[in-house]
Amino acid sequence: MRRIGIIGGGQLGQMMILAGTPLGLEFGVLSPHDDDPAARLAGKHVPGSLHDEEAILRLAEWADVTTYEIEHISVEGLERAAATGARIHPDPSVLWLINDKYAQKRALEERGIPVPALSETPARYPVVQKARRGGYDGRGVAILTSPDDPGLGDDVFYEELVGVAAEFAVIVARDTAGSVLSYPPVEMHFDARLNICTRVVAPGGRDHHLLARCRQVAEEAARAIGGVGVTAVELFLTTDGDVLVNELAPRPHNSGHLSIEAHATSQFEQHLRCIAGLPMGSPELLRPAVMLNLLGGATGAPAVQAVAARLSGPGVHLHWYGKREVRPGRKMGHITLTGETREEVLRLADKIEPLTSVEAES
Amino acid sequence: MRRIGIIGGGQLGQMMILAGTPLGLEFGVLSPHDDDPAARLAGKHVPGSLHDEEAILRLAEWADVTTYEIEHISVEGLERAAATGARIHPDPSVLWLINDKYAQKRALEERGIPVPALSETPARYPVVQKARRGGYDGRGVAILTSPDDPGLGDDVFYEELVGVAAEFAVIVARDTAGSVLSYPPVEMHFDARLNICTRVVAPGGRDHHLLARCRQVAEEAARAIGGVGVTAVELFLTTDGDVLVNELAPRPHNSGHLSIEAHATSQFEQHLRCIAGLPMGSPELLRPAVMLNLLGGATGAPAVQAVAARLSGPGVHLHWYGKREVRPGRKMGHITLTGETREEVLRLADKIEPLTSVEAES
Repeated sequence: MRRIGIIGGGQLGQMMILAGTPLGLEFGVLSPHDDDPAARLAGKHVPGSLHDEEAILRLAEWADVTTYEIEHISVEGLERAAATGARIHPDPSVLWLINDKYAQKRALEERGIPVPALSETPARYPVVQKARRGGYDGRGVAILTSPDDPGLGDDVFYEELVGVAAEFAVIVARDTAGSVLSYPPVEMHFDARLNICTRVVAPGGRDHHLLARCRQVAEEAARAIGGVGVTAVELFLTTDGDVLVNELAPRPHNSGHLSIEAHATSQFEQHLRCIAGLPMGSPELLRPAVMLNLLGGATGAPAVQAVAARLSGPGVHLHWYGKREVRPGRKMGHITLTGETREEVLRLADKIEPLTSVEAES
Repeated sequence: MRRIGIIGGGQLGQMMILAGTPLGLEFGVLSPHDDDPAARLAGKHVPGSLHDEEAILRLAEWADVTTYEIEHISVEGLERAAATGARIHPDPSVLWLINDKYAQKRALEERGIPVPALSETPARYPVVQKARRGGYDGRGVAILTSPDDPGLGDDVFYEELVGVAAEFAVIVARDTAGSVLSYPPVEMHFDARLNICTRVVAPGGRDHHLLARCRQVAEEAARAIGGVGVTAVELFLTTDGDVLVNELAPRPHNSGHLSIEAHATSQFEQHLRCIAGLPMGSPELLRPAVMLNLLGGATGAPAVQAVAARLSGPGVHLHWYGKREVRPGRKMGHITLTGETREEVLRLADKIEPLTSVEAES
């Protein structure tokens, strides 16, 4: 279980390789270009589209275990690889369920896990309309205020529009023996216009009863979906005080990036420990932290040196993904801020947040 | 200053790439094989011997700044590259001095920096005989008890045999503007038979006066040698209570590996920040730590999975270098142990040290 195949060449794969190399793992990456962020670090590159079944088979043949850093890949390719005896984690069946958001939510609902009320047609307005497939970072979600609103087209479902007081996320790790460990919940903040996560805070507040409830719901949701590796569970705290599952991702997730500095074991190391059959590490929070995404604010070659120079200093940890082009709203990197207390880190975050927009080189 | 060329494909280069990728740096490595530990992670590989001047010129032409992870390289190649206008850090002149241990020690002595008494012929016996060039990890050092002892051959010099009560090391960073920052001293322990460092402890004790003296001597020594990047300064505390410089390395060093977990900025990140013109990071010690080297105890393909499985658990951080062959005494990786107190970490180290010998796959 030394060779890890990763389908996808983005930042999640890159951070897996950075975390897994010191564990003695070696990496092959399937992605279109050998200059993709994860491919650049991998000892082996399999060129191809993430929907190319033959390329997935080639990667899985090389690897001792194959995983993925993105859901939008050929699940048929994964299944064909599994049929040849290749080890795939999480199991392809997990991805079928994850990639149909309606089926995913129904499965949770059937197990008694709290989710917003679901329907195939609008129960009443306003209502949340969601694409069953293909959405991410706020794409594939619309709020309809009346039957006349145009909406997203076919292949959609509806969720009750709940009042959201706060959003939390919990990383849940599951090993090959089925043991489950969850991380302390973090609070997520979003850019309302782009609907992209801009800030993650750990610990996620001081209401220990609420945090315990988040962890419990997240563990139940991850168990219901199954699969070996980490699952990110995004949660709503409603204005009525309920904790509802918003969405699952069967992989390391933006909400867990701060685990590199803040937790005893990062989500990337934990995912690899699970799929490689190594003992899981402690998910303990070691120190307060805030993660800020570095989003593009221009188009062109990113001004990485200027960003790296200004995002330096005590408690500031830069993670640049190495994408060759910046575009408005594109995730170009993140920073994790650490300090002695949650309040101190939040103050640092307020000071630094105006510096996080990534410009183009002049 | 985005492209970093590294001469040498070993673990120090590998850990530089792991530290520098999140800073937005990209790496080219000159080493014999593209499967060498650092080469495997680098986007660009220049195949060649470390003594191949043409290969050094090719790497330096690709890179914005070129550095090295080992001293045993062609300094002539470095100088030829510098003459073409390539940026080389530390400067080739530093390496000339470092590679002649007698000249190095003389230069320190002339500046009033405390070193063991030096001579070209034995002053009295017993005496330490050292090869002027090429020694490392205890090679190139002999203790002669009488003129009849065979010794190391020609091109040697002699040092007074001082009584050593303890050994310390200090990492000193110097940026392109000449500013200097030193790390808190660590204590080093050696295998007396192999004369290889087996254990490094941070903090290096509780005698603040002594630690301040170590830091002062190390900063003076690093300033005397010059060069941009980190310099590791190994120190003797003599039984008479003096702090003497034993040896310098113009690069990240085994004594600083625990900075990855224990310090605000690792020695690898700091070296890259210095040579790439980024602001230096804080060298503050965040928590007590012990580093144990994982030395080979057999010959063959290393049993990495067994090692990774048994060296897991709270406070245990594995760093496997990915060498294809284990040999007795070879540095195959290291672990850093962290905890709340120095005593707690030392207890953990005593428990784990018997598990650190690397066996071959059966």
